[in-house]
Amino acid sequence: MLQNTPLKIMYLSPAGGSRGDGNNIFAAMAEQNKRPGTEVHIVSPPPDDGLFTHIEYRSYEAIVTRGIVRGVRAAAKEGFDGLAIGCFYDTALHDAREISGEMMVTAPCVASCEIAASLSNRFGIIVGRRKWVHQMHSTVAANGYEDRLSGFYHVELGVNDFQTDHDRTANLLIEAGRKAVELDYAEAVILGCTMEFGFHRKLEDELGVPVIDPSIAALKRAEYGALLKRQCGWKPSRKWSCEAPPEDEIARFGGFDNGEAFAGRLVVEAA
Amino acid sequence: MLQNTPLKIMYLSPAGGSRGDGNNIFAAMAEQNKRPGTEVHIVSPPPDDGLFTHIEYRSYEAIVTRGIVRGVRAAAKEGFDGLAIGCFYDTALHDAREISGEMMVTAPCVASCEIAASLSNRFGIIVGRRKWVHQMHSTVAANGYEDRLSGFYHVELGVNDFQTDHDRTANLLIEAGRKAVELDYAEAVILGCTMEFGFHRKLEDELGVPVIDPSIAALKRAEYGALLKRQCGWKPSRKWSCEAPPEDEIARFGGFDNGEAFAGRLVVEAA
Amino acid sequence: MLQNTPLKIMYLSPAGGSRGDGNNIFAAMAEQNKRPGTEVHIVSPPPDDGLFTHIEYRSYEAIVTRGIVRGVRAAAKEGFDGLAIGCFYDTALHDAREISGEMMVTAPCVASCEIAASLSNRFGIIVGRRKWVHQMHSTVAANGYEDRLSGFYHVELGVNDFQTDHDRTANLLIEAGRKAVELDYAEAVILGCTMEFGFHRKLEDELGVPVIDPSIAALKRAEYGALLKRQCGWKPSRKWSCEAPPEDEIARFGGFDNGEAFAGRLVVEAA
Amino acid sequence: MLQNTPLKIMYLSPAGGSRGDGNNIFAAMAEQNKRPGTEVHIVSPPPDDGLFTHIEYRSYEAIVTRGIVRGVRAAAKEGFDGLAIGCFYDTALHDAREISGEMMVTAPCVASCEIAASLSNRFGIIVGRRKWVHQMHSTVAANGYEDRLSGFYHVELGVNDFQTDHDRTANLLIEAGRKAVELDYAEAVILGCTMEFGFHRKLEDELGVPVIDPSIAALKRAEYGALLKRQCGWKPSRKWSCEAPPEDEIARFGGFDNGEAFAGRLVVEAA
Amino acid sequence: MLQNTPLKIMYLSPAGGSRGDGNNIFAAMAEQNKRPGTEVHIVSPPPDDGLFTHIEYRSYEAIVTRGIVRGVRAAAKEGFDGLAIGCFYDTALHDAREISGEMMVTAPCVASCEIAASLSNRFGIIVGRRKWVHQMHSTVAANGYEDRLSGFYHVELGVNDFQTDHDRTANLLIEAGRKAVELDYAEAVILGCTMEFGFHRKLEDELGVPVIDPSIAALKRAEYGALLKRQCGWKPSRKWSCEAPPEDEIARFGGFDNGEAFAGRLVVEAA
Amino acid sequence: MLQNTPLKIMYLSPAGGSRGDGNNIFAAMAEQNKRPGTEVHIVSPPPDDGLFTHIEYRSYEAIVTRGIVRGVRAAAKEGFDGLAIGCFYDTALHDAREISGEMMVTAPCVASCEIAASLSNRFGIIVGRRKWVHQMHSTVAANGYEDRLSGFYHVELGVNDFQTDHDRTANLLIEAGRKAVELDYAEAVILGCTMEFGFHRKLEDELGVPVIDPSIAALKRAEYGALLKRQCGWKPSRKWSCEAPPEDEIARFGGFDNGEAFAGRLVVEAA
Repeated sequence: MLQNTPLKIMYLSPAGGSRGDGNNIFAAMAEQNKRPGTEVHIVSPPPDDGLFTHIEYRSYEAIVTRGIVRGVRAAAKEGFDGLAIGCFYDTALHDAREISGEMMVTAPCVASCEIAASLSNRFGIIVGRRKWVHQMHSTVAANGYEDRLSGFYHVELGVNDFQTDHDRTANLLIEAGRKAVELDYAEAVILGCTMEFGFHRKLEDELGVPVIDPSIAALKRAEYGALLKRQCGWKPSRKWSCEAPPEDEIARFGGFDNGEAFAGRLVVEAA
Repeated sequence: MLQNTPLKIMYLSPAGGSRGDGNNIFAAMAEQNKRPGTEVHIVSPPPDDGLFTHIEYRSYEAIVTRGIVRGVRAAAKEGFDGLAIGCFYDTALHDAREISGEMMVTAPCVASCEIAASLSNRFGIIVGRRKWVHQMHSTVAANGYEDRLSGFYHVELGVNDFQTDHDRTANLLIEAGRKAVELDYAEAVILGCTMEFGFHRKLEDELGVPVIDPSIAALKRAEYGALLKRQCGWKPSRKWSCEAPPEDEIARFGGFDNGEAFAGRLVVEAA
Repeated sequence: MLQNTPLKIMYLSPAGGSRGDGNNIFAAMAEQNKRPGTEVHIVSPPPDDGLFTHIEYRSYEAIVTRGIVRGVRAAAKEGFDGLAIGCFYDTALHDAREISGEMMVTAPCVASCEIAASLSNRFGIIVGRRKWVHQMHSTVAANGYEDRLSGFYHVELGVNDFQTDHDRTANLLIEAGRKAVELDYAEAVILGCTMEFGFHRKLEDELGVPVIDPSIAALKRAEYGALLKRQCGWKPSRKWSCEAPPEDEIARFGGFDNGEAFAGRLVVEAA
Repeated sequence: MLQNTPLKIMYLSPAGGSRGDGNNIFAAMAEQNKRPGTEVHIVSPPPDDGLFTHIEYRSYEAIVTRGIVRGVRAAAKEGFDGLAIGCFYDTALHDAREISGEMMVTAPCVASCEIAASLSNRFGIIVGRRKWVHQMHSTVAANGYEDRLSGFYHVELGVNDFQTDHDRTANLLIEAGRKAVELDYAEAVILGCTMEFGFHRKLEDELGVPVIDPSIAALKRAEYGALLKRQCGWKPSRKWSCEAPPEDEIARFGGFDNGEAFAGRLVVEAA
Repeated sequence: MLQNTPLKIMYLSPAGGSRGDGNNIFAAMAEQNKRPGTEVHIVSPPPDDGLFTHIEYRSYEAIVTRGIVRGVRAAAKEGFDGLAIGCFYDTALHDAREISGEMMVTAPCVASCEIAASLSNRFGIIVGRRKWVHQMHSTVAANGYEDRLSGFYHVELGVNDFQTDHDRTANLLIEAGRKAVELDYAEAVILGCTMEFGFHRKLEDELGVPVIDPSIAALKRAEYGALLKRQCGWKPSRKWSCEAPPEDEIARFGGFDNGEAFAGRLVVEAA
Repeated sequence: MLQNTPLKIMYLSPAGGSRGDGNNIFAAMAEQNKRPGTEVHIVSPPPDDGLFTHIEYRSYEAIVTRGIVRGVRAAAKEGFDGLAIGCFYDTALHDAREISGEMMVTAPCVASCEIAASLSNRFGIIVGRRKWVHQMHSTVAANGYEDRLSGFYHVELGVNDFQTDHDRTANLLIEAGRKAVELDYAEAVILGCTMEFGFHRKLEDELGVPVIDPSIAALKRAEYGALLKRQCGWKPSRKWSCEAPPEDEIARFGGFDNGEAFAGRLVVEAA
């Protein structure tokens, strides 16, 4: 059964739709990292709510969450097996899981922490700006990994800066990584922004510890969840706090289904 | 100074706009509970994102947060001193605080916990449905009150049910309160939904402990915050995680300022 | 009702009675910061238990707690609406609340933390001596604010030193505040001693973040609690751990009511 | 050295002085449980602050703490090696340790938890009244034993009731112990009041788990601390938060040394 | 690359070697649940240390840990990509990870919690005997999932009892699951023993929530870790606490490599 | 009774058997620190599992735990009253307690923390290598002392290095202790390895705070536990998680009792 039907994974980048080629980077990431039998769609919400190229501010997140839950609902209806929300804030993850039907939803922070915790006892997270730390710390703690944390290390780059000067970015990330490993005794490092893509192998070489790329982690965790669903039958709970809203109420209230759910869809086929 | 200019408080009910007379109940609440020198505006977001009469589901919240941050931004521009978000989920409180300028923002859960913790060592929270508990528990814990909690007590009424049969509601709330006080040793009780308005004095009589109404608590906490701003100069921090987004980026991305910010505004004048 | 009868607040400074003009500073503070309709009495316990000019040591506190609970009981009998204990150790707060009848009791540390937490996500506390930190840390944690704390910053001044050389004090507080904000990412600052009065506005100017003065915070929180009692009917719980001792036992044991309860009463009238 | 000079332990019962034969029970306890080479003095503070026969209320404790720190200071001056404060609230333990010089101070709750935690993974505490639980829970948690706690079990007896009808007390304690062991999976039981003396062996027989008597535990822990001081040289730290007040300030403030320090001294000699 | 070389996973059952057909059940489990391209070896330590058919007691575990670390070391030398320790105590997981070289090691409890936490907010764990709970609770907490736990539910069956009367076992597990879901609001259930194999789908049907089988979870997590190693290059950290012992010291001390490492090897081939 | 029969304590050094004169150091320690009426046997497991001279690695511990539980069982059968496991990892403490019958078992880390916590509010731990910290931190936290910890301080000496150059060791320990006390505000210091024996008094002189030697602490705690058993009747619980394995199963499985239990026994007689 697994061989015949590809696993379908959606990678939903909350701010990528208006970034022009923003999603190409994630398509390349998926191409390099997915299992052969997995099909990945990279999408963003349509720009109805604003032309965000990043969501570093909580108030930006509050505006794009509408697009995220609409996209998740649409993906579930299209029959996707798993979905990854492409922002290290794990924006709207709880909201998305409520409305995802039988589709598993994950996100970069929790996916990265799981991996780092399986490979080390203590890890640091390299972020762009100090601004982000409070929220990300809360997310790490809510997922139960606070005791594992050596700290957050910021390099004073914004989301849109990481891919502009690759050498400078690499140097800043390495410097932050050294601080984590040498001063704070981190045993692994997580890159705390999906736009830090492309640097994890270089950092591993320099630092000598595992370095987790969060967009890869999210994709792989979605794929793992999809495998568990297909092979073992494990689907999201719909009991108690996991209860989904009733369909007739959704229809009556509106808000979920009007207009296009996605922009900029790129498809990476199963091999 | 305080005497001459009324304190201006906004009470923003996330789902009230489409409820018809939904906001009248809060106007009456404000009339009865505000200081004489306070002016209160009760509003809801416009129904652009859906005609929600409640936001019991996380995915509903994810849709209305856009309206909340827009409303908060508009209120700050109008010169309000304080704003209360009228839902016991404290929906989008962190997001709202980021964008509130010099206006203090609060919400029912945190405001109620502060009061209950000052009057007792241990309190219980009576909610509508078990569905709500996971998120509310997280909020209570994030605010530092987990050790004070005797538990959550659900009465299997939805948000829209509390005001339909007042006798039945009162009986269910009293029964839940008895469980909290007599079995779990609660010393105070918080009503865990703004639509549980109108019952707290009756419950106090029956239970013999303080019973905190959350919409009153949120209003009074906004008023207290406004007083602290006016008299002592204490305004929201804008440092590190509290940094607001830059105005030029807001203008470029859009998403904040198009269209009406409020629906159904009711004004309760200063005396 | 509120207009006609002033709110009556007592500010009880545990070590002020023997300080000569020690309470004048708090009378000025009250004059500048109270609502017009509030009447404030500044008092200290009588010097029966020793002529303490500060209670930096736990063993000093253990001696003055007798005076605090006697004073609280007397204030409740006099019909005060709220009482603030004027020491950042929040000395005997739990004890005082037990015996306060229908009067709300608060203290500087908890009152300051509530305000700082509503205006920022993370705050630091500037104390006089490292000696104080263990106990104050315990108090902050017991009130649920440990996760908000960037740290304690001591300036090696004793309680009685803060008001001797104002320029030196200001410089030391600013230096400590810079450490909190710039090195430890505090977003707000609390002054951790009521004798640090008179510096918070200057520090706000220098640091660019909210700086909470604890004696003002305690006074305003007592006033807020008094308002909640008068307008909303919320009084201290007397259930379970909040149960007050029986009057006949108090009479039989003695210890509460003999002699004067207060020394050095200064009254700041309602406007 | 150890053989020639008896270890000197003081057992300071905060409310025993006015209880008439209150201290006889503890003298018998010491006689049965001390090492041969230990001398024990059982004392109470003089009744200057009230004729308390129990300190079940926090406000009672606040009044007797003066007597406790005075007594601790006097015991240190008399050359005692260890002192146990005889109340399961561990009343004023931190205050006492500050002023104890080279004398080790302990108290029943922490001493009992140490023993129970060394003999089991999980224990319950049987208290007199529900009133006590909040404070005792805080003490257990502050000492790091919260994760070990199966719960508190109250029998609705006051401190002064335990020794009036021994059969009734035994039955109530056994019933509470059964609840702890059979329903909540306690593996050991602590008696949560020093006046529950005389029942622990009977409870062990009935329950089949270790049952810790708190007055014995406090005495033995004081003796153990005294041994560690004599044999290994381990004395209380006087650094940072453990710093004692300066003697000249004590002399200037007064409050510590006037009048008798002890009432009702009973001496149990070394063998 | 992935297509051409099978992933090699070892399933190491600590007590299975002496159970006769004990490992057949796990071979069938692997056959049904592995990816096609995965090869699984099921092994147990040789019976040198005792003929354990279960390790319910900590002292039994202490004896078999020698066999576990020897087996892990041997598996790493054989070139396995991942290894699962087949006991819900996650016996010796930390020890095994230290000595595993580039091989990822996981175990049932942590693997099951990760899955349950991704599908629900709150889960219960059904165990055989109350005896097990203290250690398992510690493991769940150490992995950061304590806040997710509704509780442990024991059915009073030992490890060797689960597979003797399948109907009885199923009924007991369903009854325990109902308690978790209906009384304690669990939203998912974990089976807390690898010998509870064969029941999870039936329980899902009866309970209406996801039910995680721990041996499948451990196998799949090992496979996922192996995929992450092969595709993304993520291998165990060897820094700080993850440092492996030096080979020359291992040789000098002995203890690791003498004799056979495995007993009862069953191989499930890649498809 | 106490006078006539010596208390019998076993000090079980997990890696000492192959160290040649390794146990002499602990015999001298016992001679200097035991009560006169106590008899101490110093032993190690036989070298069947490897010739370990230290167990700095978790995988080494995993191999020697078999010897520890066998030794504990044998000691209990020989009628010892208390046993101390001589490694600051508190290796196999839980396992040992399960199988110890009526004998109390303790270990250096928990014993040292108890003492340090009774003499100070905050302490630091000086360890050999950073490698050790993760596990020791977990142990300290599991025992409830995490809030007391100023930190761990490593001197980059292995277990076998401490006794090679005493001056160098002393200097490194003093330097680390200064860091703990002066930079991190430790009020007491614990030496985090039993091979740091011989330095605690020198460090106390230099640092001016209590310095706890862990092998002495473990010995004294075992002696204290033995006294509590003899005088007060307090023996290990055998209920729930403390249940010991059934003797018939032990006999059937084997693994516990074959061969010698101890190597290198040194006996320090009662005076």
